[in-house]
Amino acid sequence: MTLLLHGFWRSLATFRVRAALNLKGLAYDETAVDLDRGEQFGARYHRINAQHVLPALEHDGLLLTQSLPIVEYIDETWPDPPLLPADARGRARVRALAQIPTADVHPLIVPRVRNFLEAEFGIAQPGRLKWIRHWFDRGSEAIEIRLGESGPAGRYAHGDRVSIADLALVSHVIGARLFQADLALAPRLEALADRCLALDAFARAHPLAQPGAPAAAGAHRG
Amino acid sequence: MTLLLHGFWRSLATFRVRAALNLKGLAYDETAVDLDRGEQFGARYHRINAQHVLPALEHDGLLLTQSLPIVEYIDETWPDPPLLPADARGRARVRALAQIPTADVHPLIVPRVRNFLEAEFGIAQPGRLKWIRHWFDRGSEAIEIRLGESGPAGRYAHGDRVSIADLALVSHVIGARLFQADLALAPRLEALADRCLALDAFARAHPLAQPGAPAAAGAHRG
Repeated sequence: MTLLLHGFWRSLATFRVRAALNLKGLAYDETAVDLDRGEQFGARYHRINAQHVLPALEHDGLLLTQSLPIVEYIDETWPDPPLLPADARGRARVRALAQIPTADVHPLIVPRVRNFLEAEFGIAQPGRLKWIRHWFDRGSEAIEIRLGESGPAGRYAHGDRVSIADLALVSHVIGARLFQADLALAPRLEALADRCLALDAFARAHPLAQPGAPAAAGAHRG
Repeated sequence: MTLLLHGFWRSLATFRVRAALNLKGLAYDETAVDLDRGEQFGARYHRINAQHVLPALEHDGLLLTQSLPIVEYIDETWPDPPLLPADARGRARVRALAQIPTADVHPLIVPRVRNFLEAEFGIAQPGRLKWIRHWFDRGSEAIEIRLGESGPAGRYAHGDRVSIADLALVSHVIGARLFQADLALAPRLEALADRCLALDAFARAHPLAQPGAPAAAGAHRG
């Protein structure tokens, strides 16, 4: 069995898949697609994912894309430990929590969007940073509300077992810290992320723990 | 058993849930949250969804949010007919297809984003329309490539059975038509959407078939 992850140190979506693989105790190789050099548009990665976005996971010749569907595939293929609750109601809550970072925030702050703001509308760096922080902050507020609603209490987003929700929420907090957004809006979220990042599977997946990442001290509080 | 959908005629995410309910043959009530009047921010809807986004589905007192997690809940709770393939590989392909419209395109064109472009960056209507069409077009290109890749042939996105992918892809085409984006980029996608929209479950869910929608002829080619 071979697993090959196409990712980049900084990519929040790659982080989600990396952490899921770690939580399952799976051995995998990772190959870097350098977003800063535009390698996602190069011939090599075009053959892997013609949408030019990260990550992609190859499993014994099967090519998987989109972080949450990849994580669901990992969970279905290697069920232990489960990353989704056993009940439909719980799964719906966990999946909805995971959607806030991945579908409401992250799509707005990826490089292709920042590049379009600059190239088409002439939005300079301070404006782009305001944009990025705005969407992180609106996401943080939304997550904080959701975490306080109708889920089981426990160490993680849904009880005492790590779930797909935690993968997504931690990626949000990592991104918010890298861009110095206002996590004071979401103390419950931030504490939850720190509990997750204390786990080896999350810590080893952290962007700043990857080859090619800049020295960690300045950019990350953890 | 009661099902109450909080939606709006124009909302593409509401369309996805409405079509799923129709495909399952479920009876439900729908209540309008008028996005044009800002009712998503009002006290009534704030109690339903403090994130102020559509849709929300109430099922016997359980409150569900986020369109794809709602559709997965519907599929798990009423399994017939299934909206996901039986194999993990197929489910991963279907879920990844569904992510392109819902996570790569739709988040960029919702009202809160258009409003921010106007209020913060002074982007006028022509610029905002260019923005909207740009993201629809990039999504259409990506979907068209994916549809040509490694899935079973058939009438729909994944073989001859309607899946969650079709719900999302049809919502993309409906949105692209409403905003007059360039669907000539994706002839396979457009033909697929028209096959789906010929089904009663999709046709009855169409935004322009809802109470409150403007007359259909001008805005929609179907």
